[in-house]
Amino acid sequence: MLALMSLWQVRSEIGIQLKFNLVASDGRARAGVIETDHGSVETPAFMPVGTQGSVKAIEQRELVEVGAQIILGNTYHLYLRPGTDILDKAGGLHQFIGWDRPILTDSGGYQILSLAGLRNISDDGVEFRSHIDGSLHFFTPERIIDIERTIGSDIMMVLDECSPYPCSYEYAEQSNELTLRWAMRCRQRFLSSEVRYGHSQALFGIVQGSVYPKIRERSAQALGKLEFDGYAIGGLAVGEPAEEMYEIVNVCSEILPFDKPRYLMGVGTPENLLEAIERGVDMFDCVLPTRNGRNAMFFTRHGPISITNAQFKDDMFSIDEGCECYTCGHFSRAYLRHLFQAKEILGLQLATIHNLHFYQCLMGEGRRAIASSTFHTWKQEQLALLRRQIPAADYQS
Amino acid sequence: MLALMSLWQVRSEIGIQLKFNLVASDGRARAGVIETDHGSVETPAFMPVGTQGSVKAIEQRELVEVGAQIILGNTYHLYLRPGTDILDKAGGLHQFIGWDRPILTDSGGYQILSLAGLRNISDDGVEFRSHIDGSLHFFTPERIIDIERTIGSDIMMVLDECSPYPCSYEYAEQSNELTLRWAMRCRQRFLSSEVRYGHSQALFGIVQGSVYPKIRERSAQALGKLEFDGYAIGGLAVGEPAEEMYEIVNVCSEILPFDKPRYLMGVGTPENLLEAIERGVDMFDCVLPTRNGRNAMFFTRHGPISITNAQFKDDMFSIDEGCECYTCGHFSRAYLRHLFQAKEILGLQLATIHNLHFYQCLMGEGRRAIASSTFHTWKQEQLALLRRQIPAADYQS
Repeated sequence: MLALMSLWQVRSEIGIQLKFNLVASDGRARAGVIETDHGSVETPAFMPVGTQGSVKAIEQRELVEVGAQIILGNTYHLYLRPGTDILDKAGGLHQFIGWDRPILTDSGGYQILSLAGLRNISDDGVEFRSHIDGSLHFFTPERIIDIERTIGSDIMMVLDECSPYPCSYEYAEQSNELTLRWAMRCRQRFLSSEVRYGHSQALFGIVQGSVYPKIRERSAQALGKLEFDGYAIGGLAVGEPAEEMYEIVNVCSEILPFDKPRYLMGVGTPENLLEAIERGVDMFDCVLPTRNGRNAMFFTRHGPISITNAQFKDDMFSIDEGCECYTCGHFSRAYLRHLFQAKEILGLQLATIHNLHFYQCLMGEGRRAIASSTFHTWKQEQLALLRRQIPAADYQS
Repeated sequence: MLALMSLWQVRSEIGIQLKFNLVASDGRARAGVIETDHGSVETPAFMPVGTQGSVKAIEQRELVEVGAQIILGNTYHLYLRPGTDILDKAGGLHQFIGWDRPILTDSGGYQILSLAGLRNISDDGVEFRSHIDGSLHFFTPERIIDIERTIGSDIMMVLDECSPYPCSYEYAEQSNELTLRWAMRCRQRFLSSEVRYGHSQALFGIVQGSVYPKIRERSAQALGKLEFDGYAIGGLAVGEPAEEMYEIVNVCSEILPFDKPRYLMGVGTPENLLEAIERGVDMFDCVLPTRNGRNAMFFTRHGPISITNAQFKDDMFSIDEGCECYTCGHFSRAYLRHLFQAKEILGLQLATIHNLHFYQCLMGEGRRAIASSTFHTWKQEQLALLRRQIPAADYQS
């Protein structure tokens, strides 16, 4: 433990690698800027999910166009395919996928839970079978950091165990203790390893503890002391009621260091994001806008619409009045419905563009509302709009 | 017949709706400009196929980016879905799909042959079952023109019967006589009907006759006298050897009016296009660049490559050196291979962009070679390159 402490001192001497400047706050809601060697990320930030090195059905230049300042990749997936040898030869993930803005990599804790076959968790690490070919692999906290160094993400996540929901207090407690031990080992490896491609990399800790406030408190306190570059709240949006999720976010927000970014993993609906921002969260990722888009669901300011509904078959208006995305600027609901009915790939592309643009705009507006100290009012207005179910008659001519 | 003749006179009095200016020729190869109310099309021209109102896996703005000056839609498909009522309400296909450049619509003769269940051909027309829901429909030559008026394509095609390959001389002869009678009825309906959306529409005849030069001659002569705005050579690329196709193109080219565009339907490979241009063809359409792209095949100046081959797994070069498309400008073969291995939709998008760009560049270069009277030499050089199989060693580092 002493050796570890001295490493932290070295670290604090070499300075903080990730800068997070808080520029405004409104209640607990915060607007900030994360600075990385690949550019700035304004918070609150939504990170489109590019699990395998591609945000599904959208081009990298279109991610820039919709306003994405950072995307997410997954260590578990990228390790299995294309593999670290290819990423190494490419000069890291940014080079490999042609994306020069920041990248955050999830460690794969959640994916091992949800995707991998046979998994064997021990104090040392986790053994699992690849969901692609069934091959056997072993991740230790140290190995995860090594892989993330090879990926070259701007923000790396520690290896954690994401407890299932529901789970007992005892399970959640033991699981969290394991996650904390792994977090310390990740941190140690992080401090004793070097960047591969000349740009800085930061490391975030992950608060676990299921829906149990006491475990979450202990997790947030312990991680806070380890001085990570930022803190994620993991293990939520796994099936628990939204109110329970918000309570856990409150608990974590109170404890986590004020001057570091907070990232609520895998969340969520527009409503979830607004509620979490109000509770002090700065960063989000979720497959909802992309996955639901590919399932013909378009987010709008007046609630989501399922474009395959017959009511849209001759609706010549755009998806969302006032939306400035490519999709809304050029195509009608009738055409988008036709594309989905005819199983045209273009439907997936246009839905993805619109939904990601919608999420990015929501974050941008939220940020401006925080800066002008009107966040709560703005949020209430947005929620009222989002919850409004559009009657079919609105679309019938 | 007299009534029809007088209609043609009316037509010649109101002037030719489609302008085709030949700007250069080199042997039989021609460079020209087709002028429509939606803009010009430089020939030789390749038309990406947007059967159902979308060129698969590419956005309309990207079609412009890759240089497409005209796209193709299919009357059979568009009639079945979204249906003429929707297209009518949208103000035509251009408005519906957000494409303001020219559109040509195939009549559906080939699709009824290849897709529809039970088809019953009589002199009156063709009865068929929808490939979507099995419903029964009846197309007459007049009905096809009415539908194409509602679609609002800049260039409409007559209803034809595309004979299967192989077929007997007698079948081909009878089929062609039917196609000629239908062509006259289409022409008559064309002349007696009006445009729907304020822009001009042209009508092309279709030469049939399978692989029998005598029938092709009669078809081309008869259609030539009907003074269509352009002439398609149909019923090829259905399984016959390339040499047979080229011979038929020669036969048709000799007879078809010199001052009207000639369109070789459904063709083909880069090699096919170059050979056909040399034989006097001006326009092409084919699913090859888009469909093969979605199957991981990339066209290059050195022959096609199948990107899923293991030899590309760590190949950090672009698909085609010197190619200026978005795909080649930003992504490596290794990344493209990864996208296909991981079944990412982005792979389909990037392959489609590259392959269509490749086809458009080939047409543009061919046009310049014609203008500088070097077409034959240029063609031979291109064929030598295209036929060269790249040894695996070229890609191995």
